[in-house]
Amino acid sequence: MPKLKVAILLFDEVEVLDFAGPFEVFSVTAQLSGYQSLEVITVGKKHQLIRAKNGLKVMPDISIEALDAVDILVIPGGDGSKAVIQDKDLMAWIAMMAQKAKTVFSVCSGARILAKLGHLAHQKFTTHHEVFESVLSLEPTAIPDPTARFVDNGKFMTAAGVAAGIDLSLYVVEKYFGVETREKTAKYMEYGEFN
Amino acid sequence: MPKLKVAILLFDEVEVLDFAGPFEVFSVTAQLSGYQSLEVITVGKKHQLIRAKNGLKVMPDISIEALDAVDILVIPGGDGSKAVIQDKDLMAWIAMMAQKAKTVFSVCSGARILAKLGHLAHQKFTTHHEVFESVLSLEPTAIPDPTARFVDNGKFMTAAGVAAGIDLSLYVVEKYFGVETREKTAKYMEYGEFN
Repeated sequence: MPKLKVAILLFDEVEVLDFAGPFEVFSVTAQLSGYQSLEVITVGKKHQLIRAKNGLKVMPDISIEALDAVDILVIPGGDGSKAVIQDKDLMAWIAMMAQKAKTVFSVCSGARILAKLGHLAHQKFTTHHEVFESVLSLEPTAIPDPTARFVDNGKFMTAAGVAAGIDLSLYVVEKYFGVETREKTAKYMEYGEFN
Repeated sequence: MPKLKVAILLFDEVEVLDFAGPFEVFSVTAQLSGYQSLEVITVGKKHQLIRAKNGLKVMPDISIEALDAVDILVIPGGDGSKAVIQDKDLMAWIAMMAQKAKTVFSVCSGARILAKLGHLAHQKFTTHHEVFESVLSLEPTAIPDPTARFVDNGKFMTAAGVAAGIDLSLYVVEKYFGVETREKTAKYMEYGEFN
């Protein structure tokens, strides 16, 4: 299998564990394969420091202009997702990347972004327990599933709040690389699972 | 209670979830108190970008010279901990901070740093499942407890691998602010617990 490219979107006020959890999972999977199975990159609207929620300062690897296709697109949440859905240029880029990608998933309130792009229409979804109404205001036909740790609709998936991004990332690792790779990744991370 | 200051050490090749997990926990606790209960800062040897394990680039809030006391010191692990214990200036700073702090804990292979400073002598400890021998080579009198998610020796504590830093951080939140604050923090993070 050719190496998969995973891109994790970063933006101001992104929730830290929303992106750091998936980053850890996919990076450990890559590491355990000697970096043969996949490549993980972070991408921001610009190639400059972003200020994540509560002040963590992170430098994206590249800007959106420098990336024109990925296999797996991770869309974290955080208060900053409210500004993202108002940003026409960034939303157009996400829409284009989502179209080309094989798997696209949101974590936590990142579901707002998938909702705004129309990908949750008539679809089951989950998000942070405080954010269901906000997502439904963007996509009234979406079907909330507050009991799900994550929802797999095929190409598009949604994770529940914050830490649930780790669980969905492990699920995606299993989908592409099998249960043994998932288990090795979780063991290296010493992460107990919820599902 | 006066606001507690939590400092999280960053260094090249620090494991991402080792620091991002505690950052998320303490930041959410702070946020839920309207930023009255504690303040979270990241600190690096210098005030310049560090390259965490697998390439995440993070800018510490301040350099070690700019910080002379904290209440809670978080020492993450990662391959970079091997270089940290060889860095006399950084180790002297950690030793000084650890002396002044109320609580000091390592995550994962960060236990190497506590071992090198003598804080694990004749003490039970835990670390990543692949790192026990390395810690014991630095402190042969330390008593490994591979079954523990974390070990509380009073002022000094150690967490098991990577994700276990989240569990120990939640435990420390409970220690300072009570079980209700711990539960609110874990709920906001949608984090199921292991202990």
